[in-house]
Amino acid sequence: MAATVIDGKAVAQAVRSEISDEVRRLSQKYGQVPGLAVVIVGNRKDSQSYVGMKRRACAEVGIKSFDVDLPEQVSEADLLKQVQELNANPDVHGILVQLPLPKHINEEKVLTEISLEKDVDGFHPLNIGKLSMKGREPLFVPCTPKGCLELLHRSGISVKGKKAVVVGRSNIVGLPVSMLLLKADATVTIVHSHTSEPERIIHEADIVIAAAGQPMMIKGSWIKPGAAIIDVGTNAVDDPTKKSGYRLVGDVDFEEASKVAGWITPVPGGVGPMTVAMLLQNTLQGAKRKLEQSN
Amino acid sequence: MAATVIDGKAVAQAVRSEISDEVRRLSQKYGQVPGLAVVIVGNRKDSQSYVGMKRRACAEVGIKSFDVDLPEQVSEADLLKQVQELNANPDVHGILVQLPLPKHINEEKVLTEISLEKDVDGFHPLNIGKLSMKGREPLFVPCTPKGCLELLHRSGISVKGKKAVVVGRSNIVGLPVSMLLLKADATVTIVHSHTSEPERIIHEADIVIAAAGQPMMIKGSWIKPGAAIIDVGTNAVDDPTKKSGYRLVGDVDFEEASKVAGWITPVPGGVGPMTVAMLLQNTLQGAKRKLEQSN
Repeated sequence: MAATVIDGKAVAQAVRSEISDEVRRLSQKYGQVPGLAVVIVGNRKDSQSYVGMKRRACAEVGIKSFDVDLPEQVSEADLLKQVQELNANPDVHGILVQLPLPKHINEEKVLTEISLEKDVDGFHPLNIGKLSMKGREPLFVPCTPKGCLELLHRSGISVKGKKAVVVGRSNIVGLPVSMLLLKADATVTIVHSHTSEPERIIHEADIVIAAAGQPMMIKGSWIKPGAAIIDVGTNAVDDPTKKSGYRLVGDVDFEEASKVAGWITPVPGGVGPMTVAMLLQNTLQGAKRKLEQSN
Repeated sequence: MAATVIDGKAVAQAVRSEISDEVRRLSQKYGQVPGLAVVIVGNRKDSQSYVGMKRRACAEVGIKSFDVDLPEQVSEADLLKQVQELNANPDVHGILVQLPLPKHINEEKVLTEISLEKDVDGFHPLNIGKLSMKGREPLFVPCTPKGCLELLHRSGISVKGKKAVVVGRSNIVGLPVSMLLLKADATVTIVHSHTSEPERIIHEADIVIAAAGQPMMIKGSWIKPGAAIIDVGTNAVDDPTKKSGYRLVGDVDFEEASKVAGWITPVPGGVGPMTVAMLLQNTLQGAKRKLEQSN
């Protein structure tokens, strides 16, 4: 039995089309569209490609994108000033600072400067605290974790009472996705670099979220037959048959795993498109909250 | 082989004696002692008994206790005003509002009013966020979770790379203790009321933190031989042989479990005394931070 391959592109497209409709309604009702500021510092190829995708995605759904491109040498003070200006700009409902920032800039300081109401990445510790706590709701749920849950939900995979194993514990994916799964009543285990025998733990899981950043670390034999596998990893590995000299692979050995799993996301085309769609959704949500409050 | 019974009273006494020495040093250096405000609303017997213990513990180590006793009928506005006054009082370094509050008062609102620098309970969502996130440190670690880790540490039980199972996911114990164990590099699983076959998951654990509030739910047969069991539960069960008509039991069947486990905490006399000791430690820490900044 081959796994059902979850088409992240198609799901993301469906989400984007819903967002597009909502943006139109909002614009008709309030005469204003949501605005997202995407800030990039320096010339990193990967960052530029991500930022480009985000800006194009905004345009597609009718969200106004505010482009801030700063040179590699920009001072921390100048970057902070830019963030403060965006905080004050009433047309901007979300602010995204593309990471990583150059080494001379304190990332924590910059991210904490973003107004909570515009923190569409949801990385502020106050947001993470509320995300973790029972009975509290964050203003924004971080995009990639939200995208993982949305993929499960829209594929008809229930989470409640299931054994979920999250591989990786980053602030951006592993930790918040664990908290979301817990809030959705899964029994959650967090596996990381100090875990002994990860294969045995993963083999018990009904749902695996792979976010370790280790190319193809999770083998087919590690997977419980019928499990749902969400692969967040995006790793470049050498491939001389490609013009670029590399190809992208996930944290899961797709070839092997797709023979055992019940559902699996491909890389690319799985979680990636959902992250961008969730960013648009968060921006829309921020704009709605703002416009409904002030009208 | 019988388990080593971890004597929480003795460990707490050792911690309190260290605190007492530190308080003396602080007082000699700055001419000021740490101050803890303990606020109680109404006449709940259990709350009064907890508050009494905390105030006596302060006196024992030389921490000045500020007693605020408010009637059951106090308005939310008046309680908030009291908290604001304590926030402004330079002799108060920690503020503890005993929970639960009467139903007409919004607990979340009151707890959020406490100044972050004086939130010795560590329940503020910003604190919980920083506790959860890699590379961030909260101003205060919640007392009971901190006490659990301290008991493990002082019993010579290493956490790194161990399988830890936390039973319960409350904001006060289960969630933050999971985050602390994760930061200490344990492989953490959170078990709760929607978990199927909790006994199988618990049986894999090298370390069990029981914080479900279910009297003697964890049986001896659920425990892996040699495991370390920290029992946070404090449940009153009927006992006609006692003058009071009840006795306190934990979430673990101590009788059975102590025959299988490697280490176990008793109830009472295990985690309870540590919670109070950690509250004193947090108050001391808050005072040190304040006095070192302003001197």
